[in-house]
Amino acid sequence: MSVYEKLKELSITLPDVVPPAAAFLPFVSSGNLLFVSGHIAKKDGQPWSGRLGDGITTAEGKEAARAVAVELLATLHAATGDLDSIARIVKLLVLVNSSPSFTEQHLVGNGASELFGQLFGDAGKHARSAFGVAQLPFGACVEVELIAEVSS
Amino acid sequence: MSVYEKLKELSITLPDVVPPAAAFLPFVSSGNLLFVSGHIAKKDGQPWSGRLGDGITTAEGKEAARAVAVELLATLHAATGDLDSIARIVKLLVLVNSSPSFTEQHLVGNGASELFGQLFGDAGKHARSAFGVAQLPFGACVEVELIAEVSS
Amino acid sequence: MSVYEKLKELSITLPDVVPPAAAFLPFVSSGNLLFVSGHIAKKDGQPWSGRLGDGITTAEGKEAARAVAVELLATLHAATGDLDSIARIVKLLVLVNSSPSFTEQHLVGNGASELFGQLFGDAGKHARSAFGVAQLPFGACVEVELIAEVSS
Repeated sequence: MSVYEKLKELSITLPDVVPPAAAFLPFVSSGNLLFVSGHIAKKDGQPWSGRLGDGITTAEGKEAARAVAVELLATLHAATGDLDSIARIVKLLVLVNSSPSFTEQHLVGNGASELFGQLFGDAGKHARSAFGVAQLPFGACVEVELIAEVSS
Repeated sequence: MSVYEKLKELSITLPDVVPPAAAFLPFVSSGNLLFVSGHIAKKDGQPWSGRLGDGITTAEGKEAARAVAVELLATLHAATGDLDSIARIVKLLVLVNSSPSFTEQHLVGNGASELFGQLFGDAGKHARSAFGVAQLPFGACVEVELIAEVSS
Repeated sequence: MSVYEKLKELSITLPDVVPPAAAFLPFVSSGNLLFVSGHIAKKDGQPWSGRLGDGITTAEGKEAARAVAVELLATLHAATGDLDSIARIVKLLVLVNSSPSFTEQHLVGNGASELFGQLFGDAGKHARSAFGVAQLPFGACVEVELIAEVSS
């Protein structure tokens, strides 16, 4: 089953890729590696703002991380023209807007990690770092950066 | 026009590269990729300290990020011997010393991003993540890490 | 002297690699690069929790960073089967759980950097970024992510 069939099965529609809100690109490729810019969580097209441990629960944060993964998939589709040409999701950097006492960044990150696993199977299993940040652009609750490997 | 001519046009003089204040190198290359260590903002040769949203304005932070880009350029020159041999600025990681309420890290980061665009044109357009950190070495207001691709 | 002989000389025993506490892998390789997930500091097999500048001293943080390096070495051994096949420690990302006033993240990071230098010599000298984060998974005081280059 292709990645697109799995997206359909999960009722996920990829959003349009909007230009970044600043002077950079959504992705740059170098050799076989595709470096995807940090994408923030959105809800109804607007920044999904808030802080984990201070109004946003771990379950909500996990949902937000899954939403970021959908944004990243839209950019990966724009970058490659074919999600099935992605050889590997290599690494995620998961930034969680965290109160000083919130220590479940790894559970939040699973919202993105699990979706990549569902869609890409073994090729979706990746290395990862997750940590708590003091704040994010637009007050977003989660931001995720990604490195993928494309078929040569 | 070469990158050096553009630097001259912008009246930018590259500083000397000083050894890092700790047990690591300013850069390491692997294949065509050049991994440049996080550089902190400096003013008059000293760490440019302060926190965005708490004494440092977005405009000042943007200026500090541009100052970090100049430091990074000095290291890129030391690494390559010729800034014109840089095929691509691939990715920036922009760390902004942020108060809990400061949400314009992306605007701060533009100070670095725009300078790379001015100097390298299309080759200066990069992927990027920007976020708020709790604190930085020497209390610096901004730190930026960079990956570049050199011509093979 | 091999890396294993140096580990023995330093009386360092590599721990078992335990599966990550979340939906990701300890490492992923792509080409010659090995991307190692963020590993948190442990003490007696448990997360080494605490915050620099708020109960944990710089010296303790440096010790914690060294302990993370040992965890990373165990993963590098599992990934390569032979630590002596590592051509280069390329880059570290050092995340320090920091109070708003703690500004010695670079000294904390040296605990990891110096051990890689001791074990790998010139091949252990790396690029690095270190910064203060708001919080880490399990409340850990230090987390380190690593990129290595393996021999082709």
